[in-house]
Amino acid sequence: MPLFRAEELRMISFKIFKAAGATNEEAQLVSELLVKANLAGQDSHGVMRIPSYIRGIQRGELILGAEAEVVRETSFSALLNGNWGFGQVIGKKAMETAIEKAKRHTVSVVCAFNCNHVGRLSDYTMMAVKEDMIGIAAVNSNKIVAPYGGKERMLSTGPISYAFPTGKEALFILDISTSISAEGRVRVKLHKGEKLPHGWIINKNGNPSNDPKDLYEGGALLPIGGDAGYKGFGLGLAIDILSGILSRAGCAYEENKRGNGVFMEAINIESFLPIDKFKQEIDGLIRAMKNSKPQPGFNEILIPGEPEFRMEQMRLMDGIPLPERTWMEIVETAKKLGLDV
Amino acid sequence: MPLFRAEELRMISFKIFKAAGATNEEAQLVSELLVKANLAGQDSHGVMRIPSYIRGIQRGELILGAEAEVVRETSFSALLNGNWGFGQVIGKKAMETAIEKAKRHTVSVVCAFNCNHVGRLSDYTMMAVKEDMIGIAAVNSNKIVAPYGGKERMLSTGPISYAFPTGKEALFILDISTSISAEGRVRVKLHKGEKLPHGWIINKNGNPSNDPKDLYEGGALLPIGGDAGYKGFGLGLAIDILSGILSRAGCAYEENKRGNGVFMEAINIESFLPIDKFKQEIDGLIRAMKNSKPQPGFNEILIPGEPEFRMEQMRLMDGIPLPERTWMEIVETAKKLGLDV
Repeated sequence: MPLFRAEELRMISFKIFKAAGATNEEAQLVSELLVKANLAGQDSHGVMRIPSYIRGIQRGELILGAEAEVVRETSFSALLNGNWGFGQVIGKKAMETAIEKAKRHTVSVVCAFNCNHVGRLSDYTMMAVKEDMIGIAAVNSNKIVAPYGGKERMLSTGPISYAFPTGKEALFILDISTSISAEGRVRVKLHKGEKLPHGWIINKNGNPSNDPKDLYEGGALLPIGGDAGYKGFGLGLAIDILSGILSRAGCAYEENKRGNGVFMEAINIESFLPIDKFKQEIDGLIRAMKNSKPQPGFNEILIPGEPEFRMEQMRLMDGIPLPERTWMEIVETAKKLGLDV
Repeated sequence: MPLFRAEELRMISFKIFKAAGATNEEAQLVSELLVKANLAGQDSHGVMRIPSYIRGIQRGELILGAEAEVVRETSFSALLNGNWGFGQVIGKKAMETAIEKAKRHTVSVVCAFNCNHVGRLSDYTMMAVKEDMIGIAAVNSNKIVAPYGGKERMLSTGPISYAFPTGKEALFILDISTSISAEGRVRVKLHKGEKLPHGWIINKNGNPSNDPKDLYEGGALLPIGGDAGYKGFGLGLAIDILSGILSRAGCAYEENKRGNGVFMEAINIESFLPIDKFKQEIDGLIRAMKNSKPQPGFNEILIPGEPEFRMEQMRLMDGIPLPERTWMEIVETAKKLGLDV
């Protein structure tokens, strides 16, 4: 697999988006967040998205230079029409708006519709953390997850993220799908010719399957929970309502659903306790977890965000490996835009 | 098993709390919510709690007539010192406060500390729904759940509830623990002499076990997720932070932790879209799920809150069955207070 320095990938990505007609600001932000995902090891949200974003532009689904506009607003909330711009630009504006409002009014919710793929939710919840706030974000997208006890695709993977300010200890960034696996991980197993663990998917008849191919032949992902899959299903529905109905973006099951419905919230900690005290206590919590004894077969307890942080340290040193196929698709996309990368 | 009408159990419960010195308001509210839990089939949160609440009073852990006081407040948030009164009284005041604030300021968060067992979270999130708002609630309590990959008890079962207003369709009330099972369900299996499904608990050595006894001999419950247990662990930590640190109640891992740390939030839907439109869309979502095809082995798709609603209809007709042992403990508790129930 070819290896790339982060800076190099950012530059390639920037050039491609510029060649496709994006503004400097758009090309810069999108490239930064895609490469950040690769650094964290979340390659399914990394530069492999470039070709599909470019296709979106060419199909008119992604509008270059579009400005997100506020269509409904209070001092404590806002609803944004993203006008089908880059999801990253809309997501950033949504969380910036939430943070500004929470600074003066403790807690705020901002939703957005007509929004393309925003990428990793943790990029937005961490914006709140940098302002010493709690960040919460959830999105919905296309249907691919079956209800608990159901066999049809009715929900999206419904990711949710919580990020909290910490003191000296590791960052705390939770960013998870409410399905047992993201679709991207099933695709990776398919490409590697591997079987899936039990409980990830059902086939088109609603029976359990460990063959990744079955997902793409009418199957569905399962919600988290196994026996208690009604929990993952319930969380998935709650996320679909917050990010699909409250946001006006539409639910995952709806025909012609595309892009992300967006729900973002910021909570100003200082209204409850001094921020230093909060950080001290969250550090204590993290230390207690890290110092607790592992199960047989585990070396240590990892805090949400820790695996990604470690991967980032490694990839900053060693470079980012891209599968040959991903790289070729990027090169191809660049060529069509008249670039030689 | 003896069968009781809801009204009869409410009266017995009311008399017992009155005999123990509770105010009319306390005895009435606590009895109402305990019996409501029994009606819904959530017997672990029902009248079987009466003996332990009375012991709490006698030990001085539950202070009769205590008033929850606001110790920190903005127009958008409040922090309550529950002064160790009945959790139900404190929980109700917390959500009432959140609703009042959200009416004028769209979204609000209210936390509480020094709070006894609040019971079912859905009782509070449904208060918001009755005011056409979204209700969110989470609590922490004593540690009994292991971290993902860990073998020590470090987190509580960390329940979270989301409730949303609906139109003509069934209620939508999600109320779930972030452990694969609540402790009460393991205890039921123990009493019945049954084995546990795989993945519910580990024994004191951190190995998987299906013997409910192992939980009470130094074992721990597991977070939801199975292979992806880092998701349930992450959600459990987020809930511990919101309901333990933001609330000043302390985290589950801390020595001498008792009672519930409380986090409640209300969101005023009208700031985003007309409430009628919201209800129409959530009805559409519910209908789509109900009309989707079930998996082999399932008859239908159930919406969060639906199993409890059906049980309530049944028990209102047929009565509430109480295990002999539960009933005897209630009778015993009543006798010690000089009552003949």
